[in-house]
Amino acid sequence: MEKAPGSPSVRGSYPQKTAGILSSQYGINLFLAGLVLTFAWAVHAVGISKSHLLSYLITLMLVQLLWMLWYLCRSCTQRRLIREKDTHAGARWLKCGITLFAVITLILDSFKIGYYVDFSNCLSAAEGIFPVTHAIHTILQVYFLWCHAKDIIQSFKTLERFGVIHSVFTNLLLWTNGVLTESKHQLNEHKERLITLGFGNITIVLDDHAPQCNCTTTTLCSIFSQGIYYLYPFNIEYHILASTMLYVLWKNIGRKVEHHQQHKTPFKFHGITVGMIFGLIVLISTIAKVVVYLIQIGRSKNKSELALTMFYLHAISVLALMCTAGIVALLIYRLEDRSLDNSKNPARKLDAELLVGTAAGSWLLSWGSILAIICAQAHPKYTWYNLPYSILVIVEKYIQNLFIIESIHRKEEKVNDDIKTLRIVTISRGSTLSLTPSYKEIYNGRAAGDEGELPYLLNGSICARENDGAKEEASQANCPAMHSASELSFYSRNSVANHKRRILKNIAVFLFLCNLSLWIPPAFGCRPEYDNGLEEIVFGFEPWIIVVNLAMPFSIFYRMHSAASLFEVNCKT
Amino acid sequence: MEKAPGSPSVRGSYPQKTAGILSSQYGINLFLAGLVLTFAWAVHAVGISKSHLLSYLITLMLVQLLWMLWYLCRSCTQRRLIREKDTHAGARWLKCGITLFAVITLILDSFKIGYYVDFSNCLSAAEGIFPVTHAIHTILQVYFLWCHAKDIIQSFKTLERFGVIHSVFTNLLLWTNGVLTESKHQLNEHKERLITLGFGNITIVLDDHAPQCNCTTTTLCSIFSQGIYYLYPFNIEYHILASTMLYVLWKNIGRKVEHHQQHKTPFKFHGITVGMIFGLIVLISTIAKVVVYLIQIGRSKNKSELALTMFYLHAISVLALMCTAGIVALLIYRLEDRSLDNSKNPARKLDAELLVGTAAGSWLLSWGSILAIICAQAHPKYTWYNLPYSILVIVEKYIQNLFIIESIHRKEEKVNDDIKTLRIVTISRGSTLSLTPSYKEIYNGRAAGDEGELPYLLNGSICARENDGAKEEASQANCPAMHSASELSFYSRNSVANHKRRILKNIAVFLFLCNLSLWIPPAFGCRPEYDNGLEEIVFGFEPWIIVVNLAMPFSIFYRMHSAASLFEVNCKT
Repeated sequence: MEKAPGSPSVRGSYPQKTAGILSSQYGINLFLAGLVLTFAWAVHAVGISKSHLLSYLITLMLVQLLWMLWYLCRSCTQRRLIREKDTHAGARWLKCGITLFAVITLILDSFKIGYYVDFSNCLSAAEGIFPVTHAIHTILQVYFLWCHAKDIIQSFKTLERFGVIHSVFTNLLLWTNGVLTESKHQLNEHKERLITLGFGNITIVLDDHAPQCNCTTTTLCSIFSQGIYYLYPFNIEYHILASTMLYVLWKNIGRKVEHHQQHKTPFKFHGITVGMIFGLIVLISTIAKVVVYLIQIGRSKNKSELALTMFYLHAISVLALMCTAGIVALLIYRLEDRSLDNSKNPARKLDAELLVGTAAGSWLLSWGSILAIICAQAHPKYTWYNLPYSILVIVEKYIQNLFIIESIHRKEEKVNDDIKTLRIVTISRGSTLSLTPSYKEIYNGRAAGDEGELPYLLNGSICARENDGAKEEASQANCPAMHSASELSFYSRNSVANHKRRILKNIAVFLFLCNLSLWIPPAFGCRPEYDNGLEEIVFGFEPWIIVVNLAMPFSIFYRMHSAASLFEVNCKT
Repeated sequence: MEKAPGSPSVRGSYPQKTAGILSSQYGINLFLAGLVLTFAWAVHAVGISKSHLLSYLITLMLVQLLWMLWYLCRSCTQRRLIREKDTHAGARWLKCGITLFAVITLILDSFKIGYYVDFSNCLSAAEGIFPVTHAIHTILQVYFLWCHAKDIIQSFKTLERFGVIHSVFTNLLLWTNGVLTESKHQLNEHKERLITLGFGNITIVLDDHAPQCNCTTTTLCSIFSQGIYYLYPFNIEYHILASTMLYVLWKNIGRKVEHHQQHKTPFKFHGITVGMIFGLIVLISTIAKVVVYLIQIGRSKNKSELALTMFYLHAISVLALMCTAGIVALLIYRLEDRSLDNSKNPARKLDAELLVGTAAGSWLLSWGSILAIICAQAHPKYTWYNLPYSILVIVEKYIQNLFIIESIHRKEEKVNDDIKTLRIVTISRGSTLSLTPSYKEIYNGRAAGDEGELPYLLNGSICARENDGAKEEASQANCPAMHSASELSFYSRNSVANHKRRILKNIAVFLFLCNLSLWIPPAFGCRPEYDNGLEEIVFGFEPWIIVVNLAMPFSIFYRMHSAASLFEVNCKT
């Protein structure tokens, strides 16, 4: 039943490569059909209503549900079939993250059901069925990802391929749908602000604002309709995360893995206090900023300008700090002499591509802002802050991507490797006990280290290290005499390495918290790209809104994704 | 100086992976800045004129020119440095293709210079400098690609990386610029037709239609301004082709290649007559169709409808034929038992990704059309042809991609391999001469084959083949007795294989010519997506025009790219 890729395929069966293309083309068409439907709904195409789009999404989700049930049943009945696992895919913290987002998504679904019940007079049945199906879909999908995200499917490939790619693009479509609903809401809020500020003219029409009938229970209604929009950002992140995890599962189908063990590196709070404190300061100040911004913006021209100035100054200082931290980290890497691991790893490859790809979204916005500032005829004072802000956004992502991608490609530390190979040398020589005392003197004098194995191994390590070039028998006699000198140099080298590692860990934690912080403002409607007005004047309202609505989702996803990657970097360092 | 990837990097120097990210991020930002500028020009942003965009492009081209000169000089002075070559990259026919397009681009540049001279009173200097720079850029770039497209750069990597990626994105921006100019022109023509048909209302404004001053020499002016738009499609293809070749060069930097020799397989006209004839019929009928379409469309409502009906009926029959051919080819592959080559090969990987990626452009349009037909309130008769046409476009690309991707991944034919390994067996046994006569009887009776080596090897081959399962010593005696029977079966098997090969070659040639044919209509302004009016009514004029203008360039590029791939398939089969 199992078949290694590269071996001659069985007559009539599809070779690996072709099966991949077959299913991916199916998925792309599924996605494009949905995209056209979404687009048609967004531009109010003749004869297309929201219920058409929702029916399509419901169908897709039901198909995915059936497939997941089939897959779960089959893997239950065929437990004896030893499955290979990709140790890099579906990390535990990723699963925890997705579960958190899924729980909030379930709350969103229950809000939507409540909203439907309240307005059931004027809403189509699809709007009631959708949240119910979505809730079931969410629960089963999270369970599926917990159990099977690491699977490397080797048998019955065709149905699995189609099922997984179907799931990938279903989640992407749900993401698109979420993003669009969120964008429409933000645009409506922006238009309301413009009306308050006196810019209201005939062209401003609020879009899908409220249902056409009265609510049955007034208090709950406003809670539901307001609350939904605070929960959407989590729903959006949930779908894109699920989609990436499923994509890795799809890439892994039929793959042949080299079994190299991975060290479990749990997250530790020890030794990252500095990065933690600075990061938390940024996080708290950002939350405060968002609250003030949302209260002040659009109240009056003066208050809006103050809010924008505050936003830019805060963002500039945070981004400048992040740039500095990133540069320091890169410099530390340049001082070290360590090779990168270029082995095949779909999860890591996707991570790197997503970082650069989604950063492009916010780079586009930043270049737009820069061009607008250069070309604008009038420059109110607060718009000048936009220039350093936009430049810093570009530079910061550039540096951060370099740091993350280099970090996730670095091989495990050399010291560990030496220790492991030399443990065997030491043990085979039987000299472990006799040499330990001389080591202990040094060990007691140093700061508490992380390598618990070191005491038993260091001597052997140095001894063998000296032997590398010369013949072992000849140098055997000299080795003990060299101990004290070599141990000292090794110790100091190790201490420097530890020091560097601690700095890197602090930087990773700091950047992690900063990225989480920077995710909050755009996700919860604090978008100066709308509010500062400069770009809208230069490019025109409609064109700029289109650009922002297309690029912003990627920009927001970038922050969450880089936070996830930085968490991994912190665990690995 | 040379360093294998994966080995520990030299202290302070950038590791392979990071250098790649460093340069690609630079390139993406270069591109995005240009994209924003292009977008600003397209939406008539305040304070941005065409000369700003052209100045940016001129600067990029000059930087690329300097870099190419530096690279050419350095490789001249360091001839002794043995460079590795990627045998898969920059095939000869690809270079010939790009040279052809470059020559037409040079004619376009000379037309533009003439146009500038005629209208120099009201055009900015940038519009005169641009074609001159572009012509020099084109000549040097084609020379550069002829000499260095196969290079695998191993030394001084950083400057090369930045130079190559700069070139990639400069060409992509020039492509974007060409596409935009072409789209604006098509849209103007479409609007003019709408005005003729009586749909003209106030919102239809012609965009960048003609300069604001009079021409100095009236006859030449119209030739230049008309001629430019017939040459643009070639200019567009030139830039995207150059961009892909440079991208492969960039991917190859620092790569370590396994030296496996590639068989030179030149294009042969022998044995592809059937495919050739059918393909040429399609090509000629398509050209005739385009001429009739362009004459008839927009003259009157009746003539437009006739032109559209003719377009759809022709396209439907061609696409149906192509689908059938593709399915036959895939069935032949399923009957054969050959494994795919999954070794690393950036050129091939890019080819496959581009096929699927650019097909998505036309799939989007087709799904849009399908949705429009389903949702439209009124259905004039000719619009119904749009439905099978759109479905066939999707299905045909689906099948064709499967065929091309499987073809370019297939390993060289097994027969050759057997012959090669068994030549040694035969020679070592010294039985070549004694067994030859019995073979010759059969060889004389068969049709002229392609395998010139066969006469000397066939016997040994069969003999060893029979021995595969049993012990060699035991079967040694039986082998001669089996000759006549096994030779016959081998001969008939080989004849069947040859027959299949000929069918595949004919299909490849037919599809090649069909794809070339299908490139012509959209490239030269025969776009029913504009003219049938159905989608514009359902989605609205503006939204649908935006979708068409974004998706169409990819759809057009798909045809040229798949033609190129099919040419390669034909050579390989």
